[in-house]
Amino acid sequence: MSSDATIKVLLLGAGALGSIFAWRLQEGDKAKVTVVCRSNYSIVKSRGFSIVSEAYGKHTYHPNKVVRSVEDAVSDGTVYDFIIVCTKALPNLSDDSEMIVPAVNGNKTTIILIQNGIGIEKAFCVRFPESPIVSAVAYIDVSQPSDGVIEHGSNAMLLMGLCASENANYDTAAVNKSLQSVSGIWNDNGATCTIVENIQRFRWLKLVWNASFNTVSVVSGGNDTRQMLADPYCKGLIRNLMTEVYKIGEAATGEPLPVLLGADSPDAFIASTEANKTPVCPSMLMDFRARRPMEHEVILKRPLDVAKRLGIHAPYMEAVYALVVMVEKGYLSSRL
Amino acid sequence: MSSDATIKVLLLGAGALGSIFAWRLQEGDKAKVTVVCRSNYSIVKSRGFSIVSEAYGKHTYHPNKVVRSVEDAVSDGTVYDFIIVCTKALPNLSDDSEMIVPAVNGNKTTIILIQNGIGIEKAFCVRFPESPIVSAVAYIDVSQPSDGVIEHGSNAMLLMGLCASENANYDTAAVNKSLQSVSGIWNDNGATCTIVENIQRFRWLKLVWNASFNTVSVVSGGNDTRQMLADPYCKGLIRNLMTEVYKIGEAATGEPLPVLLGADSPDAFIASTEANKTPVCPSMLMDFRARRPMEHEVILKRPLDVAKRLGIHAPYMEAVYALVVMVEKGYLSSRL
Repeated sequence: MSSDATIKVLLLGAGALGSIFAWRLQEGDKAKVTVVCRSNYSIVKSRGFSIVSEAYGKHTYHPNKVVRSVEDAVSDGTVYDFIIVCTKALPNLSDDSEMIVPAVNGNKTTIILIQNGIGIEKAFCVRFPESPIVSAVAYIDVSQPSDGVIEHGSNAMLLMGLCASENANYDTAAVNKSLQSVSGIWNDNGATCTIVENIQRFRWLKLVWNASFNTVSVVSGGNDTRQMLADPYCKGLIRNLMTEVYKIGEAATGEPLPVLLGADSPDAFIASTEANKTPVCPSMLMDFRARRPMEHEVILKRPLDVAKRLGIHAPYMEAVYALVVMVEKGYLSSRL
Repeated sequence: MSSDATIKVLLLGAGALGSIFAWRLQEGDKAKVTVVCRSNYSIVKSRGFSIVSEAYGKHTYHPNKVVRSVEDAVSDGTVYDFIIVCTKALPNLSDDSEMIVPAVNGNKTTIILIQNGIGIEKAFCVRFPESPIVSAVAYIDVSQPSDGVIEHGSNAMLLMGLCASENANYDTAAVNKSLQSVSGIWNDNGATCTIVENIQRFRWLKLVWNASFNTVSVVSGGNDTRQMLADPYCKGLIRNLMTEVYKIGEAATGEPLPVLLGADSPDAFIASTEANKTPVCPSMLMDFRARRPMEHEVILKRPLDVAKRLGIHAPYMEAVYALVVMVEKGYLSSRL
């Protein structure tokens, strides 16, 4: 950690999710946060993020520093203790590990990946074998209806865990301690952050929802959770996809998937979604409607690769993967 | 058969396919054909069908009689020997057997069903237990780009067979003889018509293509055969769907599916489709683009019901069925 005792953080992907976790980290001045903004750079640089949050109130959040690129973030010689990657996980299109190269200082930089899906750590572990890599799963209800304007619901929850590394030349205890201090700041500022033993179990648990509702919302032609659950066959497909994720995840992690918010089975996931007062538009549906690339590689393809390696047949996920890729091809090619 | 030795035929669903088979039956005056037109009634009544056919040339076809309904078709006391049903098979939306009631005269009327899918005969067998029911499968490349305007390719092929009936009180030999005379007229007029023993095998064989290319063309977001086959995962999905149809069809009919035009396996179907010079827009894709109801009930749901009864697991068809129903719901509901 840097000598002046203030944690220096670089956050990439300052969209809806990233802005809330950046804000909750900077609050109280125990961390200095530089955010890399892309599409929303101009507006955030000049006016900050205009946030309306059920949990934290209405606030204009000005990051300590707003930059356009990682190069700009290090041009003044700042050495970052943490790099937090909140970008959409699209390894089939771009390698985000390459982007952060200028800011990584071997074992002095801990990289926290707050992303969806399975297998997102690999590119980072390969490129930065000396750096501690932390895998994180977020549960947060947040959107950015226009550049720099953030609407947040009532909770922000983060689960994170250090990835096991065979050739780590860092002091694991020291890394965990600094991770605890970051976690402590988030918790002090109302974002529930928990460090867990086997983070992969939680990644698979989150995938239960993402590989089913998210993907079906798109390939069914654009439906929210209520519309999907109103049809018995569509509901059955969602249950079958969830069952496949449970099966692959439990085989891959060697343990039952954890229970979070009472969800311990496909039926429990479906029941809690049915109990929502307002229907949910999954993030993949929003990407679909905005004709943006979708996270199908980490949400379906890599889990299917794991299934194949383990000899598990997952026909529902296979079918949906083939279709979601075709749907995306259709609109990305016509966008050219 | 009626006393004047001219076969009297009533044809329902005088769209693209129906108009060609009606024309090829009327040609030579051995059959008198009355067609029931719905959306294209006015234009066909006044101007006939304007047909451009690679096989039969350019011609304006005037049916012997054009009517708006079955009631109108029988109002002059005409007794029909054959009723040919060429409507789209949408038993989830309408029961076409009900529509022909006024024209059915017990065992004196033979009903020929030229429709896609599985289980289309049932409603007719139940409603008309005394009438010979003929199940037919058509292979024809034809479209109706505007009302009454028909574009036809180079072939029109029909396979048909009398459905076995336990309580038939008709003379099967006589029915087969009259069926042969109809078949003979078609063959004389260049439409290949073959009477086969086990027509269900041929229904399942046609389903191999319809349950795969047709359905995937829609749920993949609207793709023709070339676009589908260009993607390895989409091609894999098509092969998996075909394999399921083979499996269910062979179990249901108790025989291997027949070989037609060299197609004896999923790979052969795919190879012959790949060899097409021009990509094919499946009929379901055309319905999807025109926001019309699709034949998913007879192309997926009823085959899945058969699979269930036989204890065969067909997850790819299940997934695609759930999705195609959702896609249709989306556009039919927004049409209201």
